[in-house]
Amino acid sequence: MSSAPRTARGRATRDRILDSALKVFGEVGYHDASIVRITEGAGVAMGTFYLYFEGKLQVFNELVEDLNRRMRHRMTQAIAAAPNRLEAERAGFRAFFAFTTEVPQLYRIIRQAEFVSPEAMHLHYGRIVDGYRKALAAASDAGEIAPVDPEVTAWALMGIGEIIGMRWILWQEGSDGAPPIPDDVFEHTLDFITRALRPDKE
Amino acid sequence: MSSAPRTARGRATRDRILDSALKVFGEVGYHDASIVRITEGAGVAMGTFYLYFEGKLQVFNELVEDLNRRMRHRMTQAIAAAPNRLEAERAGFRAFFAFTTEVPQLYRIIRQAEFVSPEAMHLHYGRIVDGYRKALAAASDAGEIAPVDPEVTAWALMGIGEIIGMRWILWQEGSDGAPPIPDDVFEHTLDFITRALRPDKE
Repeated sequence: MSSAPRTARGRATRDRILDSALKVFGEVGYHDASIVRITEGAGVAMGTFYLYFEGKLQVFNELVEDLNRRMRHRMTQAIAAAPNRLEAERAGFRAFFAFTTEVPQLYRIIRQAEFVSPEAMHLHYGRIVDGYRKALAAASDAGEIAPVDPEVTAWALMGIGEIIGMRWILWQEGSDGAPPIPDDVFEHTLDFITRALRPDKE
Repeated sequence: MSSAPRTARGRATRDRILDSALKVFGEVGYHDASIVRITEGAGVAMGTFYLYFEGKLQVFNELVEDLNRRMRHRMTQAIAAAPNRLEAERAGFRAFFAFTTEVPQLYRIIRQAEFVSPEAMHLHYGRIVDGYRKALAAASDAGEIAPVDPEVTAWALMGIGEIIGMRWILWQEGSDGAPPIPDDVFEHTLDFITRALRPDKE
């Protein structure tokens, strides 16, 4: 329902509004976020906001979609060169944690979506699972990983990434931002995943 | 800070307020929940509410603590008779999913806690991890499971339970409540966990 900006300048303005919305929703939560605060943060007039968005819910939904796209893009790029699924998991988790360190607000915004916009939450998880499920099914068929159920496995792996990121990145966030995942935590996480996925020995 | 009720009648009243708070927070979220609505649901006067709780935040915090205790109690009972850690995982996950079906509001309330009361959220996860970590460390030392890192593994297992419960119980909730976990999803989940934990073959 939003008007896609036709000019580079329009796209830049829209991106500035989304950046500001990310900060505001991440800091004070959806309920306490106001369009005034979002436009002030973006340095645009209220009327400009309404050129691109219908209101708070729509900017929230588009923000989830935007973060989701950026996250998947980052992970897809990271795993492109991986020679097999286990290496792809390692590269994918590395990229996921790095994105979480850069954009810790992602978590908070997705958790709020449970109440604010269940559609946005379903879209977020659904799009991630969709690609993940297919990749796991192909790897399982090829014998690169154990004969797992691709859908349950995709969700289980997402759940691991989320909770480890919450505990060791999000909860450690300080005034100078969120830290990277500690190396030992990363290795222990990958050990767990590798055990769960590796093919049975002959 | 709350006054612990000294009589059975007092405890029953306090429990009725917590039950109503569970429904209200689970339905409309913390922000839209009002003490009026909670007392109406409990069938008690406003003055009675303030005998037991200082306000909305305190009833929220005590609710998280109450749910957390009930959930851990259920899981502890379920795994008491398990002959080894892998069987304990099976029984524990079965109990966790059953509790989620009975009290689907638990998820929503914990997710809200991220903004509303980070202390309540840390308490919830912290208490679960604490026992889990020790049990995994003992099982790992005894060779019942692989030599895993107990803390990262405890968090990973919690993350799996949460996301599988969200996808297959919470998201399937209808007007007649939340369904039980489907058998095949449960088995695939336990397959994944068993692979991740089982000791290496000699």
